[in-house]
Amino acid sequence: MIKFADQFQYFEKFKKSEFCLPDSWIVVRLDGKQFTRFTDFHGFDKPNDIRALELMNRAAAKVMEEFEDICLAFGQSDEYSFVFKKDTDIFNRDRDTISSVVNSLFTSAYVFFWEHYFGYTKLLYPPGFDCRVVLYPCDSSLRDYLSWRQADVHINNLYNTAFWTLVKKGKHDRRKAQEILRGTVSRDKNEILFKDFGINYNNEPLMFRKGTTLIRKLVRCLKDDNCRECILQLHCDIIGDSFWEENLEILRQESPQLFHKPDGMVSYEVKSVSAVNVSNIAEE
Amino acid sequence: MIKFADQFQYFEKFKKSEFCLPDSWIVVRLDGKQFTRFTDFHGFDKPNDIRALELMNRAAAKVMEEFEDICLAFGQSDEYSFVFKKDTDIFNRDRDTISSVVNSLFTSAYVFFWEHYFGYTKLLYPPGFDCRVVLYPCDSSLRDYLSWRQADVHINNLYNTAFWTLVKKGKHDRRKAQEILRGTVSRDKNEILFKDFGINYNNEPLMFRKGTTLIRKLVRCLKDDNCRECILQLHCDIIGDSFWEENLEILRQESPQLFHKPDGMVSYEVKSVSAVNVSNIAEE
Amino acid sequence: MIKFADQFQYFEKFKKSEFCLPDSWIVVRLDGKQFTRFTDFHGFDKPNDIRALELMNRAAAKVMEEFEDICLAFGQSDEYSFVFKKDTDIFNRDRDTISSVVNSLFTSAYVFFWEHYFGYTKLLYPPGFDCRVVLYPCDSSLRDYLSWRQADVHINNLYNTAFWTLVKKGKHDRRKAQEILRGTVSRDKNEILFKDFGINYNNEPLMFRKGTTLIRKLVRCLKDDNCRECILQLHCDIIGDSFWEENLEILRQESPQLFHKPDGMVSYEVKSVSAVNVSNIAEE
Amino acid sequence: MIKFADQFQYFEKFKKSEFCLPDSWIVVRLDGKQFTRFTDFHGFDKPNDIRALELMNRAAAKVMEEFEDICLAFGQSDEYSFVFKKDTDIFNRDRDTISSVVNSLFTSAYVFFWEHYFGYTKLLYPPGFDCRVVLYPCDSSLRDYLSWRQADVHINNLYNTAFWTLVKKGKHDRRKAQEILRGTVSRDKNEILFKDFGINYNNEPLMFRKGTTLIRKLVRCLKDDNCRECILQLHCDIIGDSFWEENLEILRQESPQLFHKPDGMVSYEVKSVSAVNVSNIAEE
Repeated sequence: MIKFADQFQYFEKFKKSEFCLPDSWIVVRLDGKQFTRFTDFHGFDKPNDIRALELMNRAAAKVMEEFEDICLAFGQSDEYSFVFKKDTDIFNRDRDTISSVVNSLFTSAYVFFWEHYFGYTKLLYPPGFDCRVVLYPCDSSLRDYLSWRQADVHINNLYNTAFWTLVKKGKHDRRKAQEILRGTVSRDKNEILFKDFGINYNNEPLMFRKGTTLIRKLVRCLKDDNCRECILQLHCDIIGDSFWEENLEILRQESPQLFHKPDGMVSYEVKSVSAVNVSNIAEE
Repeated sequence: MIKFADQFQYFEKFKKSEFCLPDSWIVVRLDGKQFTRFTDFHGFDKPNDIRALELMNRAAAKVMEEFEDICLAFGQSDEYSFVFKKDTDIFNRDRDTISSVVNSLFTSAYVFFWEHYFGYTKLLYPPGFDCRVVLYPCDSSLRDYLSWRQADVHINNLYNTAFWTLVKKGKHDRRKAQEILRGTVSRDKNEILFKDFGINYNNEPLMFRKGTTLIRKLVRCLKDDNCRECILQLHCDIIGDSFWEENLEILRQESPQLFHKPDGMVSYEVKSVSAVNVSNIAEE
Repeated sequence: MIKFADQFQYFEKFKKSEFCLPDSWIVVRLDGKQFTRFTDFHGFDKPNDIRALELMNRAAAKVMEEFEDICLAFGQSDEYSFVFKKDTDIFNRDRDTISSVVNSLFTSAYVFFWEHYFGYTKLLYPPGFDCRVVLYPCDSSLRDYLSWRQADVHINNLYNTAFWTLVKKGKHDRRKAQEILRGTVSRDKNEILFKDFGINYNNEPLMFRKGTTLIRKLVRCLKDDNCRECILQLHCDIIGDSFWEENLEILRQESPQLFHKPDGMVSYEVKSVSAVNVSNIAEE
Repeated sequence: MIKFADQFQYFEKFKKSEFCLPDSWIVVRLDGKQFTRFTDFHGFDKPNDIRALELMNRAAAKVMEEFEDICLAFGQSDEYSFVFKKDTDIFNRDRDTISSVVNSLFTSAYVFFWEHYFGYTKLLYPPGFDCRVVLYPCDSSLRDYLSWRQADVHINNLYNTAFWTLVKKGKHDRRKAQEILRGTVSRDKNEILFKDFGINYNNEPLMFRKGTTLIRKLVRCLKDDNCRECILQLHCDIIGDSFWEENLEILRQESPQLFHKPDGMVSYEVKSVSAVNVSNIAEE
């Protein structure tokens, strides 16, 4: 055996550290591991379980509360992506540490807050998430990535909504429902929902159709008219330019700006996950 | 924005996958993040909190239950190391997946089983662990690594035992206790404990002095005389050769062998964390 | 031994490929290995050997001739940096292949062209260069890097010019010359050169003071008035903005533009290393 | 621009260094880049050009002379593999430095020694080699790798010998020769060579059939009866056990042992590439 005095130095040689390239957006993306089984065991509502999505959002908000350099997070289903500012120096940009601590804290919060959202539906066994870091050097590729994830929400949710409507309301078995949907495009699925079941897909909740976007904003509260930084939970389009224009500080890596309630609330469904209650947000 | 059809291919180029070198032991090592604060908040007993150590061991056993290719795990304080067989093909040896899933499952189990070990002491906030993969190509360096970790248990625990004895029984404040211990070697600390407080360090619980080693063994149960594979929780020396000779199958990457209760139980303190109850282990 | 049919697949698992992050400038930087010894053996002129610098430039130009995606190269002393366009797909951006092929071709050309520049001074043994790839995600950090290298030329060359003037003209031994220069700043060295030896450092050749920058340009030739793409060898400032404004196509990743001879030739000393002869460049 | 004082630190963050895992054989493998074109331009003899193979061997020996920790090298056609001892600490095991310096020196030597082997056949342009490092943690996988390369020599050379015999002696055009060989196994090719052209493939030179293995040995010279360490050039089987048994020191990472001329010279064709002349090797 090697001598004690030399040990640390000896073992350091086996350790491999990798540092995230500077000047690049660090995206930490996590996904539920074997969540098909997990959702079955815990009787999740299909196609969307509001409790489960709220729990995901709560766990993600916890991660953002801990890491101030996360400027945006986007989640859907059992996945979440966290965007660290390009110039963050968190953990000296050590790839393994960033990835593991974010994932561990998220998982931990998921189990910790489970009871709050699921109540009497007990957690039967500990779930797991896998995780990896991906770097995006320029703003446009970061936006491409987030657009890709949100486009994915749309594709999956439209399919799942049609599928579970056929199964639950149409009384088809699952195989038959799959068969009906095979080869259909978006318009076909919209039509099946509307003609056969009177469902206008565009009236489905925004959270289901757009996923959840968490960002930091200053919010003026009605009760005391003070501004507070809080993490806002939005269900809006982030593919087009308007989101990025209304929240210029994100790509500019600047500090959170005052939140302006968008007119008519078409694209935004605001929900605070931090201290303030959204109904108390003052109009600017 | 890029076209939908090309998206997956486009984003794959940003993703970086690394595969663990074949023919190497994969060690996944995790550590509690900011656990000094965590132990203070939750009033852990010092220098060792049995509930906390048992919870660590339970979470680690859960990980071993899920991953059959983990042949050994070693834990102490708020850290745990999991050793995957050299020839494992788990997740195609993808470094990030192995690391993140093991860490996430461990964290998840830690929170999940908290209540079982801490009872009325509520978990106040979700804890986190960091994690990384380290490869050891040859058996001797793997043993060196594990010896290093166990030597670390000894060094830390002797210091902490002396320190907290000076504080709790000696009524010294912490600064004074630090001062007394500054520059002392093992023998000095043993003497302080024995002469001043009548404590024979060697009688301290093995779990505190040796850490916890989890391995897979076939165990013959008294009640039905059948052999079952189970994960055994040991608190024995793993620096010397005898452990490795009694459990040759580990380094040989063979399937679990029958467990022989060591004579006199000097080095072993066996405790099953799986199905069988240790008191029911038949003598071979 | 493993079966032949499975071999390729088996060995691929040991191979580690890494791909350069997309959207990042790929800089391949090489340095002479043990060149102090090499320059002594081959009797290089001090502080600068024009033959050696020209040979470096020729070898670098050869590399640029082979790799069209190299948009700029900067060299000094025994080092050279090659900048590949951010969007290059050369060798699928495989890090090892890019690095090794560039370095091998440079080395090969260095030996191949040796005789052309050194004539009767025979190459006594084969020299070596080390090499690595560094990524710069944004334009400003690429410019910072190149500025750093050019600042380095200035610092080294001023020191070396002063040192060798003290040795050669001042008849000091090397130790004494070092002593005289210890702790001096740029102004001091300029003064020593000017007051003691009548040398105005600013009149030293631009290649010595600014290093060599190779870029691609369209050049109109006097003889036939046709435009040809060629690699230009410049010895100008690349720290300030003017170089980048006169050659906007570099950072824009566009194709080579027409070369405009700068007024008065203050900052530029143009020298073609390709087909055209600079004296034949028509005034635009 | 960033301040000068902080520059080095700033740029270090962009640099990515990777260290080869300890306790692993480091294999540096290089291949000619676009050598089909190169061999055509320089009129290489087909299927094997002795001058070219000797030049490869000479360049490889130069690399071994420089790096004492290379214990074995194996070459064929336009590729060479260099095996560094598992415990080498060369360049702190920095992957990029090891790979680039070995490749650069090899390339450099290839051009430097060209004239010695090719005489009046001038080198028309500088050739290039690509290169990468592959790690083999255990002895058996290193031997597997080398066996794979030597098996490759056999497969390629038998095919090429049959092909070029059909073309040169059989007066077939290349397309016809390819057609004749399509789908044939080794026995078929041997038969074509023997029946149609009277060529016994097993009488072809060992260098063509077995590639070249370079190892370090102590050799007793006839002239002065002294032992000298030299690099031996062998053309023998390295797939079976006998080579490794006769040269146990390689896998044991011990210093070079006395060379024993094998009886009858069946498997060995010894050729010194260093100081001693093989004809002067004394019988042990």
